[in-house]
Amino acid sequence: MYNILEQIRQPNDIKNINPAQYKELAKEIRACLIRNVSKTGGHLASNLGVVELTMAIHLCLTFPEDKVIWDVGHQSYVHKILTGRKDMLRSLRQYDGISGFPKMCESSSDAFNTGHASTSVSAALGYAFSRQMQGRNNKVFAVIGDGSMTGGMFYEALNNAVTLKSNMVIVLNDNNMSISRNVGGMSSYLTRIRTADRYRQLNDNVKGAIKSIPGIGDSVVEKVSRSKSSLKRLMIPGMMFEDMGLTYIGPVDGHNINELVRTFKDAMRVNEPVIVHVKTKKGKGYRLAEENPSYFHGIEPFIVKSGELKNKPSDDRPAYTKVFGRKICELAEKDESIAAICAAMPQGTGLSDFAEKFKDRFFDVGIAEEHAVTFAAALSADNMKPVVAIYSTFLQRSFDQILHDVCICGHHVVFAIDRSGIVGNDGETHQGIYDISYLTSIPGLTVMAPKNDMELENMLEYAIYNTDGPVAIRYPRGKVCDRLHEYNAAIEYGKAELMKKGEKVMLLAFGSMVNAAAQVCDRLDKECGINATLVNLRFASPVDYDLIDELCRTHDIVVTLEENILSGSLSEHIASHLMWKGYNNIKCIPVTLPDSYIEHGAQDALRAKYGLGADDIFDKVRRCLIEGKT
Amino acid sequence: MYNILEQIRQPNDIKNINPAQYKELAKEIRACLIRNVSKTGGHLASNLGVVELTMAIHLCLTFPEDKVIWDVGHQSYVHKILTGRKDMLRSLRQYDGISGFPKMCESSSDAFNTGHASTSVSAALGYAFSRQMQGRNNKVFAVIGDGSMTGGMFYEALNNAVTLKSNMVIVLNDNNMSISRNVGGMSSYLTRIRTADRYRQLNDNVKGAIKSIPGIGDSVVEKVSRSKSSLKRLMIPGMMFEDMGLTYIGPVDGHNINELVRTFKDAMRVNEPVIVHVKTKKGKGYRLAEENPSYFHGIEPFIVKSGELKNKPSDDRPAYTKVFGRKICELAEKDESIAAICAAMPQGTGLSDFAEKFKDRFFDVGIAEEHAVTFAAALSADNMKPVVAIYSTFLQRSFDQILHDVCICGHHVVFAIDRSGIVGNDGETHQGIYDISYLTSIPGLTVMAPKNDMELENMLEYAIYNTDGPVAIRYPRGKVCDRLHEYNAAIEYGKAELMKKGEKVMLLAFGSMVNAAAQVCDRLDKECGINATLVNLRFASPVDYDLIDELCRTHDIVVTLEENILSGSLSEHIASHLMWKGYNNIKCIPVTLPDSYIEHGAQDALRAKYGLGADDIFDKVRRCLIEGKT
Repeated sequence: MYNILEQIRQPNDIKNINPAQYKELAKEIRACLIRNVSKTGGHLASNLGVVELTMAIHLCLTFPEDKVIWDVGHQSYVHKILTGRKDMLRSLRQYDGISGFPKMCESSSDAFNTGHASTSVSAALGYAFSRQMQGRNNKVFAVIGDGSMTGGMFYEALNNAVTLKSNMVIVLNDNNMSISRNVGGMSSYLTRIRTADRYRQLNDNVKGAIKSIPGIGDSVVEKVSRSKSSLKRLMIPGMMFEDMGLTYIGPVDGHNINELVRTFKDAMRVNEPVIVHVKTKKGKGYRLAEENPSYFHGIEPFIVKSGELKNKPSDDRPAYTKVFGRKICELAEKDESIAAICAAMPQGTGLSDFAEKFKDRFFDVGIAEEHAVTFAAALSADNMKPVVAIYSTFLQRSFDQILHDVCICGHHVVFAIDRSGIVGNDGETHQGIYDISYLTSIPGLTVMAPKNDMELENMLEYAIYNTDGPVAIRYPRGKVCDRLHEYNAAIEYGKAELMKKGEKVMLLAFGSMVNAAAQVCDRLDKECGINATLVNLRFASPVDYDLIDELCRTHDIVVTLEENILSGSLSEHIASHLMWKGYNNIKCIPVTLPDSYIEHGAQDALRAKYGLGADDIFDKVRRCLIEGKT
Repeated sequence: MYNILEQIRQPNDIKNINPAQYKELAKEIRACLIRNVSKTGGHLASNLGVVELTMAIHLCLTFPEDKVIWDVGHQSYVHKILTGRKDMLRSLRQYDGISGFPKMCESSSDAFNTGHASTSVSAALGYAFSRQMQGRNNKVFAVIGDGSMTGGMFYEALNNAVTLKSNMVIVLNDNNMSISRNVGGMSSYLTRIRTADRYRQLNDNVKGAIKSIPGIGDSVVEKVSRSKSSLKRLMIPGMMFEDMGLTYIGPVDGHNINELVRTFKDAMRVNEPVIVHVKTKKGKGYRLAEENPSYFHGIEPFIVKSGELKNKPSDDRPAYTKVFGRKICELAEKDESIAAICAAMPQGTGLSDFAEKFKDRFFDVGIAEEHAVTFAAALSADNMKPVVAIYSTFLQRSFDQILHDVCICGHHVVFAIDRSGIVGNDGETHQGIYDISYLTSIPGLTVMAPKNDMELENMLEYAIYNTDGPVAIRYPRGKVCDRLHEYNAAIEYGKAELMKKGEKVMLLAFGSMVNAAAQVCDRLDKECGINATLVNLRFASPVDYDLIDELCRTHDIVVTLEENILSGSLSEHIASHLMWKGYNNIKCIPVTLPDSYIEHGAQDALRAKYGLGADDIFDKVRRCLIEGKT
């Protein structure tokens, strides 16, 4: 099917390819990427942008001895293709298939698992020092996009990298894009470098001009050249990195393999960390993706010719993201003190409209979740109403800032936590299944979750207007639950919603699990003749123990349901409460995810696998009823 | 007592002081600092260094309308003195006294609570944007030390700051020190700036030289000046910040009030964020502190004349920190694959000796806890045995990196977590009372705590040699428990140590609470005739449920003891386990800290206040025995 690509069956095979065929190979790799991703879905534009870059790295390194760390890692498909995983691409991001990110367990050529941004230089530096301590001389590369450069870890690692006295190559893959448009000072600095050719000319002029002054000129040039801040800083780009003590080379055309190889070979000869600045084009080689790289950043299965999605939405339910985005605009329309903050994800978090309508109150701070949260704390301290929208998995980065900068002082910051629970194909590095644990262990933080679209709207409004401390609202990835609209009791602080009062069995469900609990309730009624009690917990912190205690008098079985791991879960909070209170005749059944990492796969398939489906829960409850077993 | 200082009774009073008296005032402030801190203990050297700087800021701003954010905040004593809290300094860091850090609840002149490093620019930016959105024109300052500049948040905030189109002043308080010697690229960059006078001269020479070329010269100078990278970058310091799009002024003598005031007034006229680089001397004006700023960074009560500590240690027990530092050296002596990593705290974490003996295997990465952890993960991936030593409170910064970069892959990184539990006088921002909650909710992370010095040594060795995944060992601030040496069963994975097998009451204690539990056990025996069971849990994750289940058959009361908040605690894990298992006749009593923030004060006083003392626990158990109440 592919002429040249077929010759690459294992790592390092690319070195046997005739250089005259590199262009053709790049073309075939792009075809392979488009073909596979159009079927499986995945990250396309970023991979199309790094075809030549990845080829050049593979021409310079030997795997698995040499190490390359892919920042974030969604641009590692070409690396997978070149290390013998071409045929496995057809299972990309599918359950039991290969991951969309580098995985050490998948290949010895994957040096480090990535997923969250800005970790690559830290990891590469670890590998470089480790090599030095062990007296080896393998090569170490980090490949980091300009978007990831807005994350503080990158800077922490650069600051530390200057202490390395041996080689390491940091490839800045500069496509002038995060997932969306890139933001901030670093980004505009890179843009200035990208367009810096005129400075180089100028440089020669000035040098010539100074030299032409007999006596004086020469000595000045010499003095300046010897000094750390030499004349080249005047015109040569990258001095910012040189100022930090790092060697900078670039910018280099990221689609010219020969130039890339030549540059990398130069860079590898320097006995310290070297930054190679590579200019690439996201979506390169596929016109539709070049024109609309954001659309093709992470995409569902699509039709190659048109770019349209293959699977038309089966129904017209909106996503929670959209409901949130609509509601916050509606509220902000009437209230000038509402501000919204996101970390490089205006589209992903549903804030695009807000960004357009309320430009002055919208803040995309870059991939900088730590800064985002402390920034919001100060907005709140100065009488604004900040709403921070960050995915559950990325909010882990802000754990300290939530606790230390927001909650100790009780600042009124609202966290809109999207992608809570199982997120699907991105897999274990992106699951939002820890937030109940880490958020409910922060004193003073209110934690809520809605059962459906309407409740998300109500909770957002409630959090902004009816509380005065920090509040987190978690909601899942994907389409809303648009059922259960008849249950719409007004939200009261720390109070659960008693949806149906029955006896014997009580189902205490949180957020995304309320719908499943309602189904279990129905089946218990129909199939077992049990009139179970159904509670929409609404608050994971504080928990409505008044209601639970009250209900315990007339119930034997308490089922707690949530989309979170077990340790530190709401189920644990409730079960331990009952134990301490001495409810000795109650049986407790926790329905949670296990205390482990959850792989990639479709959301519902994974929920079913881990027992979060209504049928599994029903069986569990029935078994307990019959056998007395939990 | 103080001539001039007595005239300052509330914020802004400094503006009424005659400028001729500034020098005398600075002297009196220093005397006041030394006098008070020598009695209470506290942060001395950093405050002595910012006397003139703080005075100058107060001369330029009006409180509380204007805002100043003190990064970390331990250098805010002078600010406290100038805002009417001079007389309260005598209660500094004491229980019920004023805090050693800025507190919004203490004064409206404290704009933001700080404690952890590198948050100030984020908070200041929040205040600046908030002002802009609300159409006010108050001033906003951030004061950040060069140490805090190694933290990634600082960089995230700078990157975001360039989007601000109104004034904000970022004061770089450059004393060339973190708590210890500063590290990394940013630090050496600042040092180059500090000594950059010769570049300025050179600048004039070059400009003159170019200009002297008729025709060509002038036009080149003009071209260069108009371009973003103007000629000044050649010699004028701070271009790195200018490259990011920020205006830089400096360096300025931080002990010259008039120059400081002049510079700040200039800076406040710029309609964008301005960095003012101020050179100060840590310990300034107190010879002993100038000579040994690290010793006087955070100090116990001392004799002013000699600098000696007032309270001689009451016994010669070493601190846990010291035991750790000694043991890791002992192990590293025999094993070249052991590396140690800290975040700007070689002394604080006990790694000074290691740093000296094993220079090539020691990494002080700066105040960069995130980078530290991911760096360690890569060391482990490349066959080293990294030990990361970070205080419990600062490790919160690495929550995501521990989960995402270390634990998902199961890298064998050992975390030595000092200052776990109540830390004392630093107060609520520094308490190590959340780590059991946030660490035990990370799948695959082993969490241990030793009951005494000997067990810490054994656990460290065990973690390095008998496990192959991530392991955390938490231990408290202060002197070791040197009792209970007779209990030294070999450590087995996930196994508790059954110290005494009895009946009826079982005490399940973790780490620092084992000693108190042993005392309770004794009293139960002597005063109630109860032969209680005493268990040293050793592992908070995984918990030894086999032993607990077994013991439950012969016990009625389970007391769980730990120095951590309740939510997400080991007590919760155990109580919920018992609930799910259906141990219906067991009474459970949790002994933990409450789910709130714990103020500053002496460690033992706070432990007693919150019921962690042996007497309180004994009373609680006895009450339960007599009345059946928990």
